[in-house]
Amino acid sequence: MSEKTETKAESPVGIVTPKDFHSDARLELDCGKSLRDLNIRYETYGTLNPDASNAILVEHALTGDAHLAGRHDENDRKPGWWDEMVGPGRPFDTEKYFIICSNVLGGCSGTTGPGSIDPDTGEPYRMNFPVITIQDMVRAQKLLIDHLGIRKLLSVVGGSMGGMLATQWAISYPEMVSSVIAIATAIHIPAQAIAFNWVGREAIMADPTWNGGNYREQPQKGLAIARMLGHITYLSEESMRHKFGRKLQSSEDYSFDFSTDFRVESYLNHQGNCFVERFDANSYLYITRAIDYFDVSDQADGDNFKVFDNVHCPFLVVSFSSDWLFPEYHGRDMARTLIENGNDVTFCNIRSDYGHDAFLLEAETLSKLMIGFLNNIYMED
Amino acid sequence: MSEKTETKAESPVGIVTPKDFHSDARLELDCGKSLRDLNIRYETYGTLNPDASNAILVEHALTGDAHLAGRHDENDRKPGWWDEMVGPGRPFDTEKYFIICSNVLGGCSGTTGPGSIDPDTGEPYRMNFPVITIQDMVRAQKLLIDHLGIRKLLSVVGGSMGGMLATQWAISYPEMVSSVIAIATAIHIPAQAIAFNWVGREAIMADPTWNGGNYREQPQKGLAIARMLGHITYLSEESMRHKFGRKLQSSEDYSFDFSTDFRVESYLNHQGNCFVERFDANSYLYITRAIDYFDVSDQADGDNFKVFDNVHCPFLVVSFSSDWLFPEYHGRDMARTLIENGNDVTFCNIRSDYGHDAFLLEAETLSKLMIGFLNNIYMED
Repeated sequence: MSEKTETKAESPVGIVTPKDFHSDARLELDCGKSLRDLNIRYETYGTLNPDASNAILVEHALTGDAHLAGRHDENDRKPGWWDEMVGPGRPFDTEKYFIICSNVLGGCSGTTGPGSIDPDTGEPYRMNFPVITIQDMVRAQKLLIDHLGIRKLLSVVGGSMGGMLATQWAISYPEMVSSVIAIATAIHIPAQAIAFNWVGREAIMADPTWNGGNYREQPQKGLAIARMLGHITYLSEESMRHKFGRKLQSSEDYSFDFSTDFRVESYLNHQGNCFVERFDANSYLYITRAIDYFDVSDQADGDNFKVFDNVHCPFLVVSFSSDWLFPEYHGRDMARTLIENGNDVTFCNIRSDYGHDAFLLEAETLSKLMIGFLNNIYMED
Repeated sequence: MSEKTETKAESPVGIVTPKDFHSDARLELDCGKSLRDLNIRYETYGTLNPDASNAILVEHALTGDAHLAGRHDENDRKPGWWDEMVGPGRPFDTEKYFIICSNVLGGCSGTTGPGSIDPDTGEPYRMNFPVITIQDMVRAQKLLIDHLGIRKLLSVVGGSMGGMLATQWAISYPEMVSSVIAIATAIHIPAQAIAFNWVGREAIMADPTWNGGNYREQPQKGLAIARMLGHITYLSEESMRHKFGRKLQSSEDYSFDFSTDFRVESYLNHQGNCFVERFDANSYLYITRAIDYFDVSDQADGDNFKVFDNVHCPFLVVSFSSDWLFPEYHGRDMARTLIENGNDVTFCNIRSDYGHDAFLLEAETLSKLMIGFLNNIYMED
């Protein structure tokens, strides 16, 4: 997802302090290996009610983190990545719900990932970190939810990779999930998205600073290229045309060299440079691989239907008309599969020019849908 | 455009010998600099008639060359890049027409480009090569056409960048062009395509082997990344889904590492590796920059119509339904502009799943359109 633009608007959430949960459990992974001494970084908003029945788990996308809303510090330039959705009267209403957001396994924002210390060696895992899956990420989050004393989540909500995690929660722990909101996502990613992930990883690994994962400083060039490429896929042809067109950086003529002539070039450069300040190259490799591997049909001998056999909760499935990374038909396919499985499904394809990033930018339309959906679940539960 | 798959089918063109035209003229360029001692590599097919009225100039795309059809040698594994279109009964009918294809200025397949020797220094130009434009490429080709004694081209034909060159020919030398066939192209490229070109160039320039353009061996990793990225944009989501889906390289499970698990990954790798064997990294930089800079409205104070003021020849404009690099609306806009200008325009949006590469893959449909169009021009001329 894109960098948020700076905003000084007061977040109703105020100052938030991230928390850490350390688990002594050994986590068995899909690859056959295991991890121990896990740390899970998370944030919460609102108050858990006495019967722990008002918890919503929000899942972040590829480059997101646990910092969903509010600010860590008064001087923070930006609030959390989905701040617009959190607070009184908003979908994640802090007066009604207890909202949890945790950094995923393999991440670089507090939760155990390739940059963490391997307890067996005392050195960072780096490329010795096991290749993880979306299912593994959900297994790790389950440890946190158990720790918080929550037996059933009112909803698991996410966009893009976050939608995969939300869907996987219902598959892995159907008895723990009362509803799912899956936005701009799919039950498996298409070949084109696998291809873009491949090129992004190749760019990182081609950077000599990457050094087989044993870098001291981030492989800035490779990571920036991966990010710029990803960024193009988060926008749409329409939104780029409207936002940048063929506008030049300066009002003068072309430079007749290879510097940033066009505004879109300068914008991408900026996105790439910001990203290397906040993200870890090895995490990028591991998380994109987990996305590639996600395919619910793998969990039921190639049968999409069978995997939802035990899943009976309502789903809100949202796609966006101009999202070409996770095109509309994915949302529609997912909705159809769930309907044929007997689930209560609300499917909405929102007309938007914002491409994949619409899940962050169409806050108003999404809010309306989500408020109604969550309220129904809350009332019924 | 994509690598062609190997084919042993006999090309009706047979063995072709590339030719070189050396020009003593000084070529004044849009950037304000000039070039001298130009070499232009070209191939011809068929026979020029006595009044030199049956010549068709075919323009190649970004990574193409002068080798349009036939084989250079009996042992060549593959014929030229658009072999299906050349020969008796085909659009470029060698019994009727004299077909010319030349490598563009800035290229790496025989025509003067950044890898050529700068006559002023005796050293290769490398990054001292001036930044060229599509107009400059056309100016260089004009020297060749004059040399061949051709005063008027029956048609100028091209796909993708080749379509830009064909259109520019009609704008630059309206009295020399009897018709234009512009396929999967645009009168300027959109922001998204500028963005992809930018990331491709950044990947090349980030490769330390590139070394400011002063490499001894190609910056293989960077150039392969640029190619893989380009390649994704030449296909469509649909064609990748049908061709690769989520198929694995081996029939077994995921590798749980970062090697080529999926067929689409292996395919891209192959495309990248083949490309670095045959293309030059600096040429890639210069040619993509020329594509970025192409905007016919720049040639008439921002007015698309005015630029076609002196252009009165018929156009065949073709787009493809799944081409997202040069979406259909570009072809439609170009056709509309020309129609309002009073030109005789045939516009066709061909339904195809092949994406941008359809211009090479939809040979049968294109052939029918082109045979009819060219025949009309030939009869009238």
